[in-house]
Amino acid sequence: MSELRKDPVIGRWIIISPERFKRPSDFVSGERFPMKPSFCPFCEHNEPQTPPEIIAYRDSGAPNGPGWSVRVVPNKYPCLGIEGKLGKRGDGIYDHMNGIGAHEVIIETPEHIEDISDLDEKQIVKVLWAYRDRLVDLKRDRRFHYGSIFKNVGMASGAQIQHTHSQLIVTPVVPKTVSEEMNGCLNFYNYRGRCLFCDMIVQEQEDSKRIVTETENFVVITPYASRFPFEMWLLPNKHSSVFENIPNYCINELARLLKNVLQKLNIALDRPPYNFVIHTGPLDRGEMAYYHWHIEIIPRLIRVAGFEWSTDFYINPVPPEDAARFLRESETE
Amino acid sequence: MSELRKDPVIGRWIIISPERFKRPSDFVSGERFPMKPSFCPFCEHNEPQTPPEIIAYRDSGAPNGPGWSVRVVPNKYPCLGIEGKLGKRGDGIYDHMNGIGAHEVIIETPEHIEDISDLDEKQIVKVLWAYRDRLVDLKRDRRFHYGSIFKNVGMASGAQIQHTHSQLIVTPVVPKTVSEEMNGCLNFYNYRGRCLFCDMIVQEQEDSKRIVTETENFVVITPYASRFPFEMWLLPNKHSSVFENIPNYCINELARLLKNVLQKLNIALDRPPYNFVIHTGPLDRGEMAYYHWHIEIIPRLIRVAGFEWSTDFYINPVPPEDAARFLRESETE
Repeated sequence: MSELRKDPVIGRWIIISPERFKRPSDFVSGERFPMKPSFCPFCEHNEPQTPPEIIAYRDSGAPNGPGWSVRVVPNKYPCLGIEGKLGKRGDGIYDHMNGIGAHEVIIETPEHIEDISDLDEKQIVKVLWAYRDRLVDLKRDRRFHYGSIFKNVGMASGAQIQHTHSQLIVTPVVPKTVSEEMNGCLNFYNYRGRCLFCDMIVQEQEDSKRIVTETENFVVITPYASRFPFEMWLLPNKHSSVFENIPNYCINELARLLKNVLQKLNIALDRPPYNFVIHTGPLDRGEMAYYHWHIEIIPRLIRVAGFEWSTDFYINPVPPEDAARFLRESETE
Repeated sequence: MSELRKDPVIGRWIIISPERFKRPSDFVSGERFPMKPSFCPFCEHNEPQTPPEIIAYRDSGAPNGPGWSVRVVPNKYPCLGIEGKLGKRGDGIYDHMNGIGAHEVIIETPEHIEDISDLDEKQIVKVLWAYRDRLVDLKRDRRFHYGSIFKNVGMASGAQIQHTHSQLIVTPVVPKTVSEEMNGCLNFYNYRGRCLFCDMIVQEQEDSKRIVTETENFVVITPYASRFPFEMWLLPNKHSSVFENIPNYCINELARLLKNVLQKLNIALDRPPYNFVIHTGPLDRGEMAYYHWHIEIIPRLIRVAGFEWSTDFYINPVPPEDAARFLRESETE
């Protein structure tokens, strides 16, 4: 028998319909990319193929040349532009503004490596620092209200380039999903006086069946109302709503944990395409008692059909308890 | 320069980023299905391969044999089951109920035809009658709150079977997207005293640049804040919130219009994969002054990446004004 479950944050019902699912290998996703490209614009020595760098961490060399370890450049085909005024205006019943914002690419290594989990831990630490540095820099611009950091891995996830990289899109409005999460959390906070995510972590820790792994400061769960098979949420277990406020001593731990859970994903599902996304508070707000930053990891194993598109009602063939168990048992090293 | 536009119904901002788009043929979607299957369970004479029919329109023959023109059967792998109690209950901070509902397939023709727009108009009228008959029947069951009727065409749209068919999923809760649309419309109604969709139709008719086609009782537009290239909304131009209340005299007109706009889509985009979905009021409510039923048609031309998944913030490379023009100019016959 299938069941209906409601995500307490966003109020979305989903269907867990496990009749046909047996094991992770039922999901055959194929190669992430059909072949290694003959030329990669993100590899060291190919710096002239990207727009000039915004920041780079480098041991040697001059800007826009070799010698860097992490490099942040504007997206060559940005969906939003950094220069200009918002020009907010109405058009009858519609609302409109200019496409102002930022669209950047974080190149995570000078080497041609496909997956962030294949980088060594120290390199992942640098990537996380780059995320933080860019958010801290961009939040000084009062036109910008939100920074979305995300990764697409594999063509089926929307990636076009194989070389491991993340993207940052900064927008002059808060995206709908984040607004909804904040509203859901605020309603809970007004009623109970506690952070909904903090309560969720406590319940998950007591229950333990949806915990993939835990460290001193973080927990990784398969959410109760997972939209997708093997979806994971990585959360700090001490309350904070702002990713870039992460304490220094936690960054190494987060890098190690991220490497570990993405390795588990790669082992359990044979290197599937996936997306990962940081959900954090808006750029123009400080710490909020009711919201809680987290990272959502979504393997792209199933096609999303008309029902899901039109209703936001997802059918997930894998109970998150089973997904957590498979992932727990996928040992790395 | 790209621009940001807000959907007035659901409050979603999207980015129109047209720099790289030139013409519809930029979107190469390939074959909907790699080949004609050697066996089709939906073709006439193969009735034993489906569960027993719920209803069928037939000129001759006995139930579950040949002689039908439209046939409705339970989905062989239903995501929800019709028998049982809802068993609503909490699980700590989570909410849960049994997977009760209905999951049906409307087989639109006894012949092996891939696209509803290749059926003759009279046959499409029967399909629309089947939609209405099923909704009217299922709304008598008080456990059910919503009926979603949708089509997946082509493997990239989530379809598994080539033979033209629609699906009906009936759920014991109203899907999140429909709730959001109703809330958005109710806010507008409380403020202005008018239906938001009715206002939108008036503005679109005055403006005309996003109108694909119009008939006496319907209008087809490319919505102002289209999430996807060549997305279309088909709306009745006289207010009604309930699809199954469509007057008899409008059904022929709707069948002709649907055939026409799907033919335009097939001509403009070389038979793309697509989804179509009816958005209508909940089963347990009568006519509402503030909500307006409509059909959303979504060609599946681009891959949805991490940013869109995580934020509900869509990047659309085709301005809806251009999409409407291309579709208007795609002449059928």
